[in-house]
Amino acid sequence: MISVVGHTAIDHISRVPDLPKKNGSTSITDRKIYFGGGAANIAAGIATLGSACTLVSAVGGDFSGSDYDREMQRLGIVQQFFVMPEANTPTAFMFTDQAGDQITFFEWGASEAFTRSEAPALDFVHMATADPSFNRQVAEKSRFASFDPGQDLHLYLPEDLAAIIGHIDILFANQHEAAMMAQMLDTTREEIAARVPLTIFTCGGEGSSLFIKGEETKIPAVPVTLVDPTGAGDAYRAGFLSAFDRGYDPLTCCKVGTVTASFIVEKTGCQTNLPDWERMTVRYSEHFGALKGA
Amino acid sequence: MISVVGHTAIDHISRVPDLPKKNGSTSITDRKIYFGGGAANIAAGIATLGSACTLVSAVGGDFSGSDYDREMQRLGIVQQFFVMPEANTPTAFMFTDQAGDQITFFEWGASEAFTRSEAPALDFVHMATADPSFNRQVAEKSRFASFDPGQDLHLYLPEDLAAIIGHIDILFANQHEAAMMAQMLDTTREEIAARVPLTIFTCGGEGSSLFIKGEETKIPAVPVTLVDPTGAGDAYRAGFLSAFDRGYDPLTCCKVGTVTASFIVEKTGCQTNLPDWERMTVRYSEHFGALKGA
Repeated sequence: MISVVGHTAIDHISRVPDLPKKNGSTSITDRKIYFGGGAANIAAGIATLGSACTLVSAVGGDFSGSDYDREMQRLGIVQQFFVMPEANTPTAFMFTDQAGDQITFFEWGASEAFTRSEAPALDFVHMATADPSFNRQVAEKSRFASFDPGQDLHLYLPEDLAAIIGHIDILFANQHEAAMMAQMLDTTREEIAARVPLTIFTCGGEGSSLFIKGEETKIPAVPVTLVDPTGAGDAYRAGFLSAFDRGYDPLTCCKVGTVTASFIVEKTGCQTNLPDWERMTVRYSEHFGALKGA
Repeated sequence: MISVVGHTAIDHISRVPDLPKKNGSTSITDRKIYFGGGAANIAAGIATLGSACTLVSAVGGDFSGSDYDREMQRLGIVQQFFVMPEANTPTAFMFTDQAGDQITFFEWGASEAFTRSEAPALDFVHMATADPSFNRQVAEKSRFASFDPGQDLHLYLPEDLAAIIGHIDILFANQHEAAMMAQMLDTTREEIAARVPLTIFTCGGEGSSLFIKGEETKIPAVPVTLVDPTGAGDAYRAGFLSAFDRGYDPLTCCKVGTVTASFIVEKTGCQTNLPDWERMTVRYSEHFGALKGA
């Protein structure tokens, strides 16, 4: 059982002719709702790839019985939720005009629960973005921990970040976050990688790097027709963790990660085109040769 | 059975510290969802006052099984809906900052169904805002028709407006719409009122005017502590129509309307504080004397 800690969120993506001026209004020509939140995306990816998964997250009174709730249940994700009945599930509203300009409204809502709650002790956990002190507790209590500070990195105090890195078994970050962590800890990304048994730095379409005991191996991205890069990082992590849970070696896990991510960028939405293990395996073999048993 | 034709909508009312600049973002500190849409508000008012009501409206694939659907079923509103599975139920997103400045996004979504659909023939119908040509058909086909062009007035061609006014039995408008109709038809509001058996012009806190065969009677508003004026007009119409359906004379119907509206302005939301017939009657008697049987 892989546990994933972090956000569940709902994204409303709207198109408008023009962004409204102050005290003005505009019409929405298209609005789609996507299931999101970094941790929920990863949990959905793991569940679709066929591994058992628990999502440790925070939702509002609007979640139970919602379409998102039903989708998680369909996927078989175990919900270990902090429910704040008076709050909303974290929600983002993004409006894009015809010129491509955007404005975004983030409602953190029930996420506040992380700051007030005691973290569980877990056997095999991946921490996606969530509250720094909650994640520090998770890192300290759990048997095997994977960590990705993600876009919440700026919320971490350097001492919390250093403490978490000292406890974890796997570190994930994209190239920007790797550089920012190095700056926060007044060191280099290579030195940070050396503090953790396994480190993976992802670089979008440029591929990813695996560090084992300071030694770097580069993994190319799988070339596809890019429609929307959002969610690729979450899918990579889902693929890596699923393969790791099945007992594959770290380099193969990275390849499974990049293959899983390649599906997500072909469609709009972070959970729209998740592959099952068989679909993933077919594409894997086209790019990296046959995926042998773990 | 009173049928009400027009919009069902969902309003997301959010507070933000500051409205975001182009390509910027902000956090939502509070978001509440209110049930709205002019026709749905009136139907909810009528149903809460205890009269049988059918709502003729357009909704999207997101409506069935939603909280709003359940609320309508609880109220016993009969749904005569055009369902557009690929569209959303009309939705408004309003963001207000600490200085009180706002921006609003309207998604008309499933409302498009009115422009494509054949209007039903109804026995006793009130037309709230909706498609002009659909409403013209309703006015021409129905036995007894009440009409309120509302904020969609600018969508009407003068000839459609004149045709509808020639067919209806009751006309409702607020003072601004009355003036705009007079301008569109190159006449006076008194002359328009004289074309319809019963006309009611509402003036917010200033009260309302009833015209019968050109003779005007003024009805004072019921003084209350104003919290949010939104939905007062819809509640007035619900009160009037409920009383009319019970056989009360037009002046009493106006008084029931203004009493019903007085509840709505005391709370935020167009359907938040609707009174049942008994609560309405108690307040009626405090201001207008005992409400005798029809």
